[in-house]
Amino acid sequence: MASDMIVYWGSGSPPCWRILLCLEEKALQGYQQKLLSMEKQEHKSAAVIEINPRGQLPAFRHGEHVINESLGAVLYLENQFKAQGTKLMPEAAAEQAVVLQRMFEVPTLHQKSVSVIMYTWIVPEAERHESAVTRNKQALGEELKLWEGYLAKLGSGSYIAGKNFTLADVVFFPNLAFCFRFGLSYDKYPHLSAYYSLVKERPSVQASWPPHWKESDGAQEVLKDI
Amino acid sequence: MASDMIVYWGSGSPPCWRILLCLEEKALQGYQQKLLSMEKQEHKSAAVIEINPRGQLPAFRHGEHVINESLGAVLYLENQFKAQGTKLMPEAAAEQAVVLQRMFEVPTLHQKSVSVIMYTWIVPEAERHESAVTRNKQALGEELKLWEGYLAKLGSGSYIAGKNFTLADVVFFPNLAFCFRFGLSYDKYPHLSAYYSLVKERPSVQASWPPHWKESDGAQEVLKDI
Repeated sequence: MASDMIVYWGSGSPPCWRILLCLEEKALQGYQQKLLSMEKQEHKSAAVIEINPRGQLPAFRHGEHVINESLGAVLYLENQFKAQGTKLMPEAAAEQAVVLQRMFEVPTLHQKSVSVIMYTWIVPEAERHESAVTRNKQALGEELKLWEGYLAKLGSGSYIAGKNFTLADVVFFPNLAFCFRFGLSYDKYPHLSAYYSLVKERPSVQASWPPHWKESDGAQEVLKDI
Repeated sequence: MASDMIVYWGSGSPPCWRILLCLEEKALQGYQQKLLSMEKQEHKSAAVIEINPRGQLPAFRHGEHVINESLGAVLYLENQFKAQGTKLMPEAAAEQAVVLQRMFEVPTLHQKSVSVIMYTWIVPEAERHESAVTRNKQALGEELKLWEGYLAKLGSGSYIAGKNFTLADVVFFPNLAFCFRFGLSYDKYPHLSAYYSLVKERPSVQASWPPHWKESDGAQEVLKDI
């Protein structure tokens, strides 16, 4: 059914993972996918650049329709396949407002976590400063406390925007998993940890789990003191 | 009709402007609004923090429903008031894909323009580098060439995602206007300039034009060599 869809993706990239997770939740089985190596610069290959002129992953096409931006792609999939798989966007104003608010707060979390985890990749050596590292870590800690607070308020067993799994989770979960992968403390964030354990077991998450995360535990510690 | 909506905003902020522009296009007249001064730190006031715990503008509430993220807010307004004012999201897959793709590319343009225009506000003095300024300017130039190319391909008189004014324009136009305000060359980007002239005259844009931009021409030159 979904053989006219293709995703080019990188293992462990939260934006890529969002699209895979959404395809799984929407039961769009049969989509084509190509796992590319960012270390080998495969995201700069002609096949990717043809779809995504920035040479970035994900690159996603449904037939002739291209949507590389992960937030746009998951909204598109939900809009176009409303009746299929998990319903990911509530229609009632109150619930929809929360889903949209949380969903679009994730880029802030993404930016703040990447600015710590990827600091040495992003910033050339001559421009690195300990003061920036300290400030970025503090900003990420404050950001994570907000999310911990959202879940604390919702109570045990909740998803990130309430009782149901929605697009807010599709967008948020990969970023949270990314933080835990890079050493975020389970103990300091008990509500985020409980949410992580709950969502991790979903078949959609298991089916789209980053392959290289299965091979090693990472043992990354960059976020251990956040 | 829309008296149960309130927007707290800052003059000239592209994310704030998006919400005002959307309210105008959706003919949601009667919304409440409060223009706050970011210089006076009014975005850190209790009234804002109650709605937006990050202490940022915009802060937007519709009755009890809070959506501060501008991309979420405009999607919410379009979803909840589909039949009212301008139809901003096409339903057909091909058109919807383009609108969503362009709409969610704008945060990249936003980040790249802010990293040049606001460099001295964002980066503490001891951490500033000429090499970063040069790199940021080059990245912004490449980004703007992409958008110039999109319009060149669409042809004269087009909006950013095709023949109709959509959410992609609601999100993109304020960022483009921000770039021209800060000195971007009209001559170097003829398609962006023509688009700017076309959209600038819309009643929704005129009604939501940043007040302090009316008082002075800015004479900012930070982007003149981009």
